[in-house]
Amino acid sequence: MRPSKNSVIKYQNKLSLRGLKNDKCLLIFDKKLIQYPEARKVIKKFPLRYGVQGGETLKDLKKFPAHVEKILKILHKNNQKDLTIIGFGGGSIGDFSGFFASTFKRGVHLVFIPSTWLSAIDSSHGGKNGLNVALFKNQIGTFYMAQTIYIARNILKHQPQPMMIDAAGELFKMALIEGGKLWRQFQKLQYLNEKQLWDILPLAIRAKYQIVQEDPTESNGYRQTLNLGHTLGHVIEARLGVSHGAAVGQGLVFATEWSYKMGFLGTNQYQLISKNLFYKHFYLSLRSSLADLDRKKIEISLMMDKKKSQKNDLYFIFPVRPGLCIRHNVKIKNILQATDALKKKNYL
Amino acid sequence: MRPSKNSVIKYQNKLSLRGLKNDKCLLIFDKKLIQYPEARKVIKKFPLRYGVQGGETLKDLKKFPAHVEKILKILHKNNQKDLTIIGFGGGSIGDFSGFFASTFKRGVHLVFIPSTWLSAIDSSHGGKNGLNVALFKNQIGTFYMAQTIYIARNILKHQPQPMMIDAAGELFKMALIEGGKLWRQFQKLQYLNEKQLWDILPLAIRAKYQIVQEDPTESNGYRQTLNLGHTLGHVIEARLGVSHGAAVGQGLVFATEWSYKMGFLGTNQYQLISKNLFYKHFYLSLRSSLADLDRKKIEISLMMDKKKSQKNDLYFIFPVRPGLCIRHNVKIKNILQATDALKKKNYL
Repeated sequence: MRPSKNSVIKYQNKLSLRGLKNDKCLLIFDKKLIQYPEARKVIKKFPLRYGVQGGETLKDLKKFPAHVEKILKILHKNNQKDLTIIGFGGGSIGDFSGFFASTFKRGVHLVFIPSTWLSAIDSSHGGKNGLNVALFKNQIGTFYMAQTIYIARNILKHQPQPMMIDAAGELFKMALIEGGKLWRQFQKLQYLNEKQLWDILPLAIRAKYQIVQEDPTESNGYRQTLNLGHTLGHVIEARLGVSHGAAVGQGLVFATEWSYKMGFLGTNQYQLISKNLFYKHFYLSLRSSLADLDRKKIEISLMMDKKKSQKNDLYFIFPVRPGLCIRHNVKIKNILQATDALKKKNYL
Repeated sequence: MRPSKNSVIKYQNKLSLRGLKNDKCLLIFDKKLIQYPEARKVIKKFPLRYGVQGGETLKDLKKFPAHVEKILKILHKNNQKDLTIIGFGGGSIGDFSGFFASTFKRGVHLVFIPSTWLSAIDSSHGGKNGLNVALFKNQIGTFYMAQTIYIARNILKHQPQPMMIDAAGELFKMALIEGGKLWRQFQKLQYLNEKQLWDILPLAIRAKYQIVQEDPTESNGYRQTLNLGHTLGHVIEARLGVSHGAAVGQGLVFATEWSYKMGFLGTNQYQLISKNLFYKHFYLSLRSSLADLDRKKIEISLMMDKKKSQKNDLYFIFPVRPGLCIRHNVKIKNILQATDALKKKNYL
């Protein structure tokens, strides 16, 4: 099968999968969705379905072969190339079902129904999937775009408030990268609720696709802009168990503070960005995180980071203003110095 | 990394890998090659190398995670995206190293050095790789072209005579599909030795690329022509342990005999094809194979075949004349009837 070059996004108040032939689909879903009647109704419609427990364990490469054997048993005689895999859940379901769809019979159709704000805003889009090998994240994966992504309000509404803050990290990142209308809308937010997230979602998603289309397989470096906030974010996520989006929010604050110190970000722009309410929120959490992380821990985690460009060198994304970021080669010791400096800072 | 759209083939009397930076490569090689001084010399040049035992066990998806963990330990700090994976061995090494290269960090560079005639003539080309899930072959895989394929006579010369016959199956297939000069050259062969295989190799490889380029990801059906001889061939390979190329040769004879019976192949063309020396060779082996296979065994194996188009239906490739094949939808019971008919035939 020829992989999709782009995804069709369907925004729906009420999830409707009209057009999908249920008996030609395998639904891979997060078991915890069964508790919600709207989700349960959808799950029951698919005779071929595979319930999994979402989370990092699902992304363990070691577990992948046993999953595939179980899925083959479910598919049995429906074991064909015109199969559609539907991933219904959050980020880990997207990674697992995306990787499976891209490698099963060398590629079958792929559809996503994100159930978390974070996957609706970020991970469902752009075609990246990855499985973990021991402690190393996303070592085995592919670029494989979903053909259709159903973003349904009656599914997303079940997300509790902390998961909205999680989405806010990636939303902030997209607003800073994109600038323009998305940035202005984001600046206006005084808190996050379902309505506000729903309204700003399409702008953030469109901004991501604009970057992905310039560099779908991360060949020319342009797509690396999307790593803004992720370098230190991954350390905080891995070391402290902070959720992905919140960790990216903290990493974003770090990148902004450092960019200001390096002179990439001028005073006016720094003041503009740092007065944002979410900036203040993530600034406080970042300070707490740094208090819990010693230099050595940060260093080891950075060494394991997959975006290492050469021995001890990393590409790092610095914001210059809303709408402009630059990529700059830094050494791990530079990052450590910058975290030390931030620890000593007394005020925002 | 953007996957290669085409492969560069280097025909060499003596293997030379000039241009590859040894410390940016991971060599995945078949351990049994160490016995040959020419191969040993190459292997020793690569500080990052991973020796494996070739064969179907290497293609077991269950074993894949442990291989990846071992490889990550070897790569250690050289764990970068500009890595080149070199697969040095026969078909199973190609499948394993090709799948690994296509999924490691979502795709790194890939180079092949085929060590068997069969992989030099067929499996190294066209970008297909696959791992097995229990008894089901090539269930998990990708399309991923090698950037460069080094076809070196001083490596291939170590292949014993039976491995040449193995290559002859796929060579016969390509000659029948391509017609023209390749067919005329093939018809002239009275036996196979190293020189003859070496001389005809480029024509057969070029013919394969012409088909692959029309349909790189098997989307429009054109590439399925390359399955000529594979439907019954896979049954013979799986059930009787006949090597892949030889089994394809037998499957090719079956397709030709059936095509004649169906009226797709006229008498003149049938006589032209069946007088070929290799045809007679594979005809005899096919008769022996069919004597050892009962209907039920063939049926179960066909049901498991991945080229099943719908329940009990298969696409089958019939030769019409050298240079022309057609794809036709058949039922499994038709195939069984055709094997029965062939069993009863008294003469070639």
